[in-house]
Amino acid sequence: MTDRFSFDVTATSGKARLGVIQTPRGEVRTPAFMPVGTAATVKAMLPESVAATGADILLGNTYHLMLRPGADRVANQGGLHHFMNWEKPILTDSGGFQVMSLAELRKLTEDGVRFKSHIDGSEHMLSPERSMEIQELLGSDIVMCFDECPALPGDRAQIAESMRLSMRWAARSREAFGDRPGHALFGIQQGGLERDLREESAEALISIGFDGYAVGGLAVGEGQEAMLGVLDFAPDMLPADKPRYLMVVGKPDDIVGAVKRGIDMMDCVLPSRSGRTGQAFTRRGVVNIKNARHADDPRPLDEDCTCPACTGYSRAYLHHLFRSGEILSSMLLTWHNLHYYQDLMAEMRAAIAEDRFAAWEAGFYEQRAMGDIAPL
Amino acid sequence: MTDRFSFDVTATSGKARLGVIQTPRGEVRTPAFMPVGTAATVKAMLPESVAATGADILLGNTYHLMLRPGADRVANQGGLHHFMNWEKPILTDSGGFQVMSLAELRKLTEDGVRFKSHIDGSEHMLSPERSMEIQELLGSDIVMCFDECPALPGDRAQIAESMRLSMRWAARSREAFGDRPGHALFGIQQGGLERDLREESAEALISIGFDGYAVGGLAVGEGQEAMLGVLDFAPDMLPADKPRYLMVVGKPDDIVGAVKRGIDMMDCVLPSRSGRTGQAFTRRGVVNIKNARHADDPRPLDEDCTCPACTGYSRAYLHHLFRSGEILSSMLLTWHNLHYYQDLMAEMRAAIAEDRFAAWEAGFYEQRAMGDIAPL
Repeated sequence: MTDRFSFDVTATSGKARLGVIQTPRGEVRTPAFMPVGTAATVKAMLPESVAATGADILLGNTYHLMLRPGADRVANQGGLHHFMNWEKPILTDSGGFQVMSLAELRKLTEDGVRFKSHIDGSEHMLSPERSMEIQELLGSDIVMCFDECPALPGDRAQIAESMRLSMRWAARSREAFGDRPGHALFGIQQGGLERDLREESAEALISIGFDGYAVGGLAVGEGQEAMLGVLDFAPDMLPADKPRYLMVVGKPDDIVGAVKRGIDMMDCVLPSRSGRTGQAFTRRGVVNIKNARHADDPRPLDEDCTCPACTGYSRAYLHHLFRSGEILSSMLLTWHNLHYYQDLMAEMRAAIAEDRFAAWEAGFYEQRAMGDIAPL
Repeated sequence: MTDRFSFDVTATSGKARLGVIQTPRGEVRTPAFMPVGTAATVKAMLPESVAATGADILLGNTYHLMLRPGADRVANQGGLHHFMNWEKPILTDSGGFQVMSLAELRKLTEDGVRFKSHIDGSEHMLSPERSMEIQELLGSDIVMCFDECPALPGDRAQIAESMRLSMRWAARSREAFGDRPGHALFGIQQGGLERDLREESAEALISIGFDGYAVGGLAVGEGQEAMLGVLDFAPDMLPADKPRYLMVVGKPDDIVGAVKRGIDMMDCVLPSRSGRTGQAFTRRGVVNIKNARHADDPRPLDEDCTCPACTGYSRAYLHHLFRSGEILSSMLLTWHNLHYYQDLMAEMRAAIAEDRFAAWEAGFYEQRAMGDIAPL
C-alpha cells in the first residue's frame, strides 16, 4: 500500500501497455476495465462478487449520485466506498456526460450547466467547482474534470468551441481540486474526430498538468471505425508516463482495439446492461439466451468460462430464468459478462507481458469467427 | 448419508419437537423452514446463498414447473436439483393448491382437475396419478399427495365433501407413487376448522400410511386465531413418529405458534416476497425500508443479525437501493429475511433441545414488543 497515487508502465507490446496504478485503496492492474456502479451499486451484483470477477476499480456516476441519494448524504454515511461496501478504488465521472444528454432540460453557460433532475424535476447546477466538490464528498479516488461532450458527427466550429470551453473548465477543475495526496485528477481530451483539435486539446491539458488523461468525446455516435481512427493518433498525444483512459467504451472488440492503441483504462455499462436483457458475451461472440434454441441445451454459455453462471448452470436453465422474468437471470448473466470482460483484460495483460499481443489478438478474432457452438 | 428416508424426534419441550429427517440428499433439521423456489429459483438468491442462510431443504411448485419449463424438460436436464444447482433435499407440492386458485380457469371432477395455464392459456390436467408422475420427473425427495384445498370460511358440508374427495385422491396418490426407496410421500389432512372432520381425515390418511403428514387447508383466509385453534388439536391426530408439515405458513409469530403446537416443517413465500417489496423481518418486528426515517440512518436493519445485508450495509443504503428500484435491494432484503427465518428456527431448535421453549417464546414476544429502534 501507498499513500500516493502513481502509475508505472511495466511492459509494452506494440503500442499496448501493461502497467499498474497504485492508490491508497489498492492497486489497479492496467489495461483495466471498470464496471459501472451508477447508483452506488453495480446492478444485480454484490460488491464481493464484482471483486471476484477480477475488477480492481469501479466507476460511479456523479450525476446520478448527486440527485439520489445526494452527495452530502453519501458523505454523511462515510463516503461512497463505505456506503456501497466497496473498499477498492473508485473513479467518478464529472456529471458532464449525463448532463449534456438532458437536451431541453439543461442550460449551458461559461459558468457551467443548470439542469432539471430526470427523477423529480428539481433544479441543480454543475460547474467545474461544483463537480470537484461533489466528487470529493463522494470520496472518489480518481476524479474527472468537468467537461462538455458534444455528439458526433458535429460541426467542426462547434466542436472546436466546445473543446476550448472544456479546456477552460479543465483549468478551473484543476484549480478547484487543489492538492489532495492519494487522490488523482484526470483531464479529458476533446476535439471530436479532428486531429488538430485533439492536438490542441492535449497541449492545453498537458500545460495544466494532470495525474492521468482521458480520451473523451468518443462512442457518441461516430461508429467503431471512426473511433479507432481517432485512437490511432489521440493516445500518442498524451503523456506516456500517465494512465490513458477511454471513457464509456465498449464492446469486447472496441476494448481490444483500444488496448492495442495504447489505452490503459475503460468503463462501460454494456456487460451489466446486456446481462439484464439476456445477452451474454462469450469467447465465440454474443449469445442471446432468450432464443428457443437454448431451451433444452445442457451446455454452459461458454465452456471456457469459470464464472458461477457457466460452472453451475446450463443454457436451458438460464433460458428458463430469462423467459420467466426471474431476477436470478440478471444476476447470473451480469456476473458472467463482467467475468468475461475481466478475463479478456487478464488475457491481454498476460499477452503484453510476454510481448505477444498481435498473436493474441489474431486468436481472439479467430475464436469469435467460429461463432457460437452448434445447436444440439 | 443414508439411502432411506427416516425421521427421528430427539427432544421435546411441551408439544414442540426437535428432530431430524434423513434423506439420501442430506439431513433436514426440524423444526425446519423451507424457502420457496417456485420457478426453480428462490427469487433473487443464488442457491449457495440460500444454503448459507441455514436452509436444509427447499420447496418447488409442481404447478409452475409443469407449465414452465415443463416436467419432461426438467427431467431431461437431469432433474430439478441439477437444473437449479441445489443438491440438498427438495419437497414439491402437488399442484393442487395453485390449481384451486385458478377459479373459472379450472374444472373439477372425481378424476382430477382440468385447467388452463395462466401463462399462455394452454390446457392441462392434474390428477393424483399425473401429479405423482410430474413430481417423480422433477426428482422431488418429498412428494405431496394431490388434494383439494377449499377456501375458508366455508360451508361444513362442502368442506366435508372436499375432504373426502382429497382422501380418495390420497389413496390414489399412494397407489401411483408406489415404492421409491429414498423418496417420501406425505399425506395431507383436510377438514377446515372442524375437529371431527380433521379426525376423520387423519384416520383415513393413517389407514393408507404415509412417510409424513401435512396439516393442509389452513392459511386460506381463516385468520391466525382460527389457524392456531386448529393447530391446538390437529397435529396430535397425526402419528408422533412421522414429520408434521404445516403448509404455506407463515409470518414469524405463526411459525412460533405452530412449532409450539408440534409442527416440524413449514414453507412460505413471505420472507422472499417481502424482501422484494422492501419489508424486512427483524427481532423487533417488521421494518419498512422505504420509509423516509431510514434515509440517513447508518445503523443496520437488525443489530443482532449476521447476514450480509446487516453486516455490510446501513439502513440508509438499503433505503437508497429500494427507492432507486435497484435489484440489489431485492437481493439483500431477501437474504436478510431468509437468514432471519433460519435464525428463528435455529433458536427454537436450541430451546427445544434444552427444554426451555416456553421461556424462549416469552423472550421472542418481549423483544418484538419493544418495537423497532428509535429514529436517529
